[in-house]
Order: sequence, then structure tokens, then C-alpha cells
Amino acid sequence: MTPDRLSATFAALADPTRRAILARLASGETSVTELAAPFDMSLPAVTKHLKVLERAGLIRRGREAQWRPCRLEARPLQDVSDWVEHYRLFWEQSLDRLDDYLKTLQSKEKKHGRKKK
Amino acid sequence: MTPDRLSATFAALADPTRRAILARLASGETSVTELAAPFDMSLPAVTKHLKVLERAGLIRRGREAQWRPCRLEARPLQDVSDWVEHYRLFWEQSLDRLDDYLKTLQSKEKKHGRKKK
Repeated sequence: MTPDRLSATFAALADPTRRAILARLASGETSVTELAAPFDMSLPAVTKHLKVLERAGLIRRGREAQWRPCRLEARPLQDVSDWVEHYRLFWEQSLDRLDDYLKTLQSKEKKHGRKKK
Repeated sequence: MTPDRLSATFAALADPTRRAILARLASGETSVTELAAPFDMSLPAVTKHLKVLERAGLIRRGREAQWRPCRLEARPLQDVSDWVEHYRLFWEQSLDRLDDYLKTLQSKEKKHGRKKK
């Protein structure tokens, strides 16, 4: 995978409507009309979002003339997961530091409590 | 976290240079000059990328007047990881289907091999 492929994936995901479309497709393939229904959006507007998702390889559209169902393609999401996984150590460390800080606060509170008695 | 926060994170990640900057910062905080060195890029160009990363909360810059070190902030990456995790089932299913297909191919090859003898 070239870096630009990952950039296209991230760019496609940088929109709440497109992420909502993926979430909808996660529960099964559907027509564009059905997809558009909950979004209070014109069909052309939804179609535009679908084109971005399709170019990024995040969805695939059927070839049936009348009904072109949209389907989720998860492969680019796996690449996102693989990429972000390299940084797991960092947020886990941040959580550890927060945990240490909270423990320090609690032990200070306990000492304070004892002094009050 | 509002959906737009996640959109800002994805938009910031949709650039290979910005992802390379994060990868560099994963090995420790550094100055802008040091960061710019491997990229064959002007300082203003690098600073522009840093501003995008900073607005998305992916980096933090020190307050020292002369040396403003950049540091990785992993929290938004954890949000990306949490978001993409919902789709794990889908790419794992795809891999299972690929695995089934390869097994079918192998068993066909074996049969073919036996016929040849």
C-alpha cells in the first residue's frame, strides 16, 4: 500500500456523514435511496459522498442496472487499524500517567482525612 | 468527543508528511528545525503542517521562548483506534473468506495433481 492510499482513506473518513454511511452499511448492503433516507440530504449529495468512499475503496457498488446496492469494504479500515496500532503504547502510557496521578490524589486525600480526625 | 473532533483528526492524518512527523515524534520530542531536516521542506511549510496537527490535538508544543519542542499527543489516536475497532469483524470476515478461497484452490490443485499421475 502506498502512503497516498492511506491518505485517501483518512480523507474519506474525515466527514461525519461518510462515517455514518459506513456505520449504516455495517449492518448490511443497501440501496442509495435507503442510505439517503435518514440523512435529510438530496440524492446527489449522498451520491457525492458515496463516490468519495468508493474511490477510497471503503465501499463497493453492485453492477445491477436498477438497484446498485452499496456494500462496506473493510480492507482500508484494517490498514487504518494497523497504522494506529503503532501508537497504542503512547495512549496507554498517558492512561498510566493519569492513573498514577489519580492514585497520588487519593493518597493525599487519605492523609488529609486522617489529619482531620 | 463530538464527531467533528474525529473529523479533524482524520483530516490531519490524511497527509503522508504529517504522518511522518508523528512517526518521528513517536521516538521523542524535538525542535521544529530537527523535524524539518529529513523532509527537504522549508521551515514555514513544516510549521504549517505542525499547526494542523496541533489544532487536531495530535501534538503539543512547549512554551519555552527559544526552543519550542513538539511532542506527540496520543489521545486522538486512541479515538481513531476505538472508532475503527467497530469494523474489525468485517475485515476479519474478509480474511476468513480469502482463507476459504485459498483452501478451495489448494484442494482443487491437489485433485488436479492426482489426475495427472
